[in-house]
Amino acid sequence: MAGEAIAKDASNAIASLKLLTDEQRSNALQEIHDSLQQQKEDVLEANRRDLDKAKKDQLSSSLIKRLDLSSPGKYDAMLQGILDVASLPDPLGKVTLAKKLDDGLTLYRVTSPIGVLLIIFESRPEVIANITALAVKSGNAAILKGGRESYQTFKIMSDIVNATLANKTDVPARAIQLIQSREDVADLLNQDKYIDLVIPRGSNELVRNIKANTKIPVLGHADGICSIYVNSDFDMDKAKKIIVDSKTNYPAGCNAVEQLLLDKHIQGDKVKEILGSLVENKVTLHVTPDVRELTQDLDQTFVKDAVDDSFDKEYLSFDISVKFVADVDDAINHINQHSSKHTESIVTEDEAVANKFLKSIDSAGIYWNASTRFADGFRYGFGTEVGISTNKIHARGPVGLEGLTSYQYHLRGDGHVVGDYIGGGGNKKFLHEDI
Amino acid sequence: MAGEAIAKDASNAIASLKLLTDEQRSNALQEIHDSLQQQKEDVLEANRRDLDKAKKDQLSSSLIKRLDLSSPGKYDAMLQGILDVASLPDPLGKVTLAKKLDDGLTLYRVTSPIGVLLIIFESRPEVIANITALAVKSGNAAILKGGRESYQTFKIMSDIVNATLANKTDVPARAIQLIQSREDVADLLNQDKYIDLVIPRGSNELVRNIKANTKIPVLGHADGICSIYVNSDFDMDKAKKIIVDSKTNYPAGCNAVEQLLLDKHIQGDKVKEILGSLVENKVTLHVTPDVRELTQDLDQTFVKDAVDDSFDKEYLSFDISVKFVADVDDAINHINQHSSKHTESIVTEDEAVANKFLKSIDSAGIYWNASTRFADGFRYGFGTEVGISTNKIHARGPVGLEGLTSYQYHLRGDGHVVGDYIGGGGNKKFLHEDI
Repeated sequence: MAGEAIAKDASNAIASLKLLTDEQRSNALQEIHDSLQQQKEDVLEANRRDLDKAKKDQLSSSLIKRLDLSSPGKYDAMLQGILDVASLPDPLGKVTLAKKLDDGLTLYRVTSPIGVLLIIFESRPEVIANITALAVKSGNAAILKGGRESYQTFKIMSDIVNATLANKTDVPARAIQLIQSREDVADLLNQDKYIDLVIPRGSNELVRNIKANTKIPVLGHADGICSIYVNSDFDMDKAKKIIVDSKTNYPAGCNAVEQLLLDKHIQGDKVKEILGSLVENKVTLHVTPDVRELTQDLDQTFVKDAVDDSFDKEYLSFDISVKFVADVDDAINHINQHSSKHTESIVTEDEAVANKFLKSIDSAGIYWNASTRFADGFRYGFGTEVGISTNKIHARGPVGLEGLTSYQYHLRGDGHVVGDYIGGGGNKKFLHEDI
Repeated sequence: MAGEAIAKDASNAIASLKLLTDEQRSNALQEIHDSLQQQKEDVLEANRRDLDKAKKDQLSSSLIKRLDLSSPGKYDAMLQGILDVASLPDPLGKVTLAKKLDDGLTLYRVTSPIGVLLIIFESRPEVIANITALAVKSGNAAILKGGRESYQTFKIMSDIVNATLANKTDVPARAIQLIQSREDVADLLNQDKYIDLVIPRGSNELVRNIKANTKIPVLGHADGICSIYVNSDFDMDKAKKIIVDSKTNYPAGCNAVEQLLLDKHIQGDKVKEILGSLVENKVTLHVTPDVRELTQDLDQTFVKDAVDDSFDKEYLSFDISVKFVADVDDAINHINQHSSKHTESIVTEDEAVANKFLKSIDSAGIYWNASTRFADGFRYGFGTEVGISTNKIHARGPVGLEGLTSYQYHLRGDGHVVGDYIGGGGNKKFLHEDI
C-alpha cells in the first residue's frame, strides 16, 4: 500500500479512537500483552532467523546485541513494559484551563491525542511493543515502520499485534498499522497532510536523515553533546564522582558527558586529580594546550590534543574533550554555543553561581551537582519514555506519555455570538473568570 | 548583514535575556511605549509616505487600510497594547512539575523562553509594537522583518525601538533586531541552527510560502476553513444567530465559517428558514443539488452550485458552502477530512450528540451552540494574541503569551550519580515523590 493510503487510513481512525475510554485502551494493551506472551516461542524463533542473517551479513556486534530478544529477562521486561504503560494515569481529557467567558459561555482546554504518529525504528524489536503501548494508551493513531535487520521479528510481532487489535479489542483496525512491506520511508515522510509527528528510534544518523527529509515535526535528538562545568568553588569528591559517572556509566547514551569545562581558577593539583580520575577509568582526554601541561603525570596513551571539532562532537565512547574557561559566564557562553541543548551540569558549592548557570543555559536539562546521566524518562519518574527531545517547542528533554498529547479548546454556549460583544460590534463585556 | 550573522547575534543574546527579571522586561516595554508616544508625529509622517507610495502603486484598498496608522484611535490602541502586555503576569519561571527523585535530589520543570523568534509580517505596522512587546515580555530574542509596503513606517519605528532598548533599558542590544534592509527572507528562513520559531503575520499566501520554505517550526495557520453542523434537534433562533454571526461578523477573519452542514433530518421549511437568514444578510450560498431544491424562494443571485473544491475552500467573503449530512457521524467525518483543524461548531439541543461532536473532532476549537468567531485570544481572555495556530504540536488555537514559552528541567543534587541506582548499576531506588 502506498504511503498516502496508509497515512489517510490512520487519519480516518482518529475520530473513533478519540471516543475510546481509558479502560478500553488499557484493556487493548492487556490483550496485546497476553498474545505476545502466548506466542513468545514463535517470536523468538523469528528473531533467531534475523540474528542468523545479521551474523551472516557480519553486522556489528552492538547491532546484533540490540537485535537479540532472547537474552535473559529481555522478553519479559518487554511484556511488563506494556502493562506498565497500561497502568499509567489516563493522559487524555484532563482539563488544563477553565474559564467562564460570560453567563452560559464556558471555555475548557482539554488534553487530547496529537493525531497520527509515524514511528521509524532500527534494530531493537522490543520498541514495537513499547511504542504500540504508548500510542494506544495516548489515543493516537500510529504507523510503525521497522528496520531491515529486524524484518522477521517485526513481521511476526506485527501480525500478532494486528490480529489481537482486530479480534479482541475496541481499538479500530487501522489505528495501529505495523508496516511490514519494504516501500520507501520517504513516501511516508511526505504525508504531512495526514501525519502529525515523526518519532525516530535509532542511531543519530537515522534521526538526522529523517529530520532532513520531512516537513512533519520530528520528536527526538540527533546529538547529545552534554557538558559539565566545574566551578572554582567545588567539592572534589562530588566532582570526580559526577564526572566519572557522566562519562563512563554508559558512554553510548545520549546523556553521557562529552566535554568538561574547568574553571581556570582551579588549582593545578586539583585539575590533575580530576583528570587522573578519568584516566583511571580508561577515559581518553582530548585536551587544549593549557590543559595538556597538567597531564604529564598521566598515562599518555589516554591524552590527546583537542582538534577543531573536539567541542562540537558526540563521542559515544570513553573519550572526553577538556578545556579551561575563564568563569561561569564563559562556561555559559561556551555551552550555549557548542552544546546540542540536551543536558548540562555544573559542579559547585556556590549557590549564586549555580543559580546563574541554571537560569542562563538554553538546554532541556540543567543540573547542579548531579550526573548528566539522570536525563531519562524512567529516572525522572515518568513511568516510561518516548524519547529525549532537544526540540525547543512542544515536548522537551525526556518525554513521557504527556509528550504524545496535545490539547483542544471546548467552548459551550447557548446561542452566543460575537456581534453582541465589545470588539465584535456590540456592548457586552466578557467576564473571563477562572472556574 | 547576512541572515546567519543576524540570527547568531540573536542567539548570543539568549543567556543575558534569561537573567532579566519581569520588572526589567516590563520596564523596557514602558520605555518603548513612551518613545513611540513622544515621536507619534514622526511615525505618522513616515506612515503617510508609505500610504502615498501605496496609492501611487495602486495597491488594494484593503491593504491601504491595514497600512494606515492614522485612522482614529489606531495609534493609541497600539500604544495601549504595549502597556497591556507589560502588565500581564510573568510567563517565565513558573514551576509546572516538582519531584523529589531521592533524598537531596529534586527535579523541577520551569517555564522558559523558547529562544529566538523570527517574525515576518506584511502591511500592518502596529504589529511591530505588538510583537516587540510580546517578545520582550516572554524573554525571547526576536528578529522582525517587515513587508515592502510598510518600509518607511517600519524604518522609523524600528529606529525608535532599537534606540530605546539600547539607551534606556536592560534588554541587550541584539535581543530585538528590527531588520530594515531588503535582503531575502529566504536567508533568514535557512537559519534553523539559530532560530527556534517563525511567526508569520499576514496573508494566507505569506504563511503558506513560509511553511513551504523553512525547516524551522512555523506558528500559525495557512487556512481557516471552519464549519458549522446543525443537528436535527436544534433551536432555530440560536442556529440562525450563530450561523449569521459566524459568517458575517467579519468574513475576512480566519475564524469565519466557510461551510454549513445541515442534518438531512431537518424539515425542508426549517432548512429554507436557515438559508433565508443568510441570503437576507447578503451571503451567497454555494449549494449541492439536494440543497438547491430548497432554495427556490430565495433571491437566485445569492445561490450558486457547489463545485469540486467548495468544501475545501476558505472564501474570506460573504460566501458559504452548504450541504446535507446523514447524521452527526457523517458531519464529524466530513469535518475531520475537509476542515483546516481550526474551529468547528455544532448547533444542537441534544447534549449526547454535542458531547460526541466535542470528543471526536480533530480541530483546535470545538464549539457547542456558539459562533466560530469566538476563536480569538482576546475573547478567550489571554490578554493578547500571538496568532491562531492550526499546528497539532506546541501551541494550538488562539495563542497567548504562553505560546512563546517552553520549559526546562532543573535537577538539583549533591553529588548524585546514576551508577548508585537500579538500572544504572547500583541498588538504590528512586522515590519519585511529588513535592
